[in-house]
Amino acid sequence: MQTRERIVRSAAKLFITRSYHSVGVSDLCAAANVHKGSFYHFFSSKADVAKAVIDLHAGEMEQRQAESENRDPAVRLLAVASAVTLVQTGFEEQFGRIVGCPFGNLAAELSTTDKALREYVAAVLGRWEARLADACHDAAEHAALRDGIEPDQLAHAILAQIQGLILLAKVSERPAAEITSGLDAFLGLALRRP
Amino acid sequence: MQTRERIVRSAAKLFITRSYHSVGVSDLCAAANVHKGSFYHFFSSKADVAKAVIDLHAGEMEQRQAESENRDPAVRLLAVASAVTLVQTGFEEQFGRIVGCPFGNLAAELSTTDKALREYVAAVLGRWEARLADACHDAAEHAALRDGIEPDQLAHAILAQIQGLILLAKVSERPAAEITSGLDAFLGLALRRP
Repeated sequence: MQTRERIVRSAAKLFITRSYHSVGVSDLCAAANVHKGSFYHFFSSKADVAKAVIDLHAGEMEQRQAESENRDPAVRLLAVASAVTLVQTGFEEQFGRIVGCPFGNLAAELSTTDKALREYVAAVLGRWEARLADACHDAAEHAALRDGIEPDQLAHAILAQIQGLILLAKVSERPAAEITSGLDAFLGLALRRP
Repeated sequence: MQTRERIVRSAAKLFITRSYHSVGVSDLCAAANVHKGSFYHFFSSKADVAKAVIDLHAGEMEQRQAESENRDPAVRLLAVASAVTLVQTGFEEQFGRIVGCPFGNLAAELSTTDKALREYVAAVLGRWEARLADACHDAAEHAALRDGIEPDQLAHAILAQIQGLILLAKVSERPAAEITSGLDAFLGLALRRP
């Protein structure tokens, strides 16, 4: 693995298993087994590597969500929404517990302390919500949503539900399966029953 | 104001307007205008003062939710759920922006770094969910919930929705009014229309 990628992947692991503010550049260098000079060759700051970490997670999420294209609208909405549960199940297998959403964690921790990173995370979450909204509009056009449900509002509610379910599972050390069942129950409120 | 209370209130403000890990005991002492000796007379550590901060916020939330006792079941559920929007509106007036839920912020930031504090926050959120569940069961017994909705699952979904809506408002610097409208829309999915 190339040095830059090694730094980014080590940082991703440290941020999500600990927290952004509790990890320093020295920790990042030690985890990636690089000298500070090498770190600063690739990144100007911890915040700079955080952006690369966000890009790494965002790429994986977008890839999983793209796998659901060209399906039946209701199935597609379920698949786009549920992509996150696959990611969380993967984290659970890797780390032995729910460590949180990489974007949600940073949103909670950084929004009040780093304007540029806040905007960076907000943009990723905005694209995620836009993909959900696209699937919600598609479902609405095919009469798969219950009466009176506005697609854009539903997309926002789904993303909020995902973030909240992950946070509650994290703080109570509950299994990833509860995120999946909670999300399924929520989507059951919005979709017409077959 | 007594010294201990001054420390707790200053810490509450610093934690919520910045973050837990980005604030040190020196910052807490400076904000409360006390010497370290005085701080350590009352608290053994930053984590110790964090518990007092959690108690402060929990007391306020419980008080607001208790105001909704003895009402019509559907109105009570709306009131218990919406108590949080009053708190967030208060924060918005005080700090000029959405700073997040005090419990959600700590849950996101501390769950992976401090087991005792994680359990302390989880217990507060558990009591919150239990109050919601009580209101949901009451609503179910009075046929105020739509068919097929399980009260305990609904309580969990409401708390998740609240946490997610606050987080999304915080990261995108949206007004508290969007938390209120999002929660109203969500509850509209679960309650029978009048």
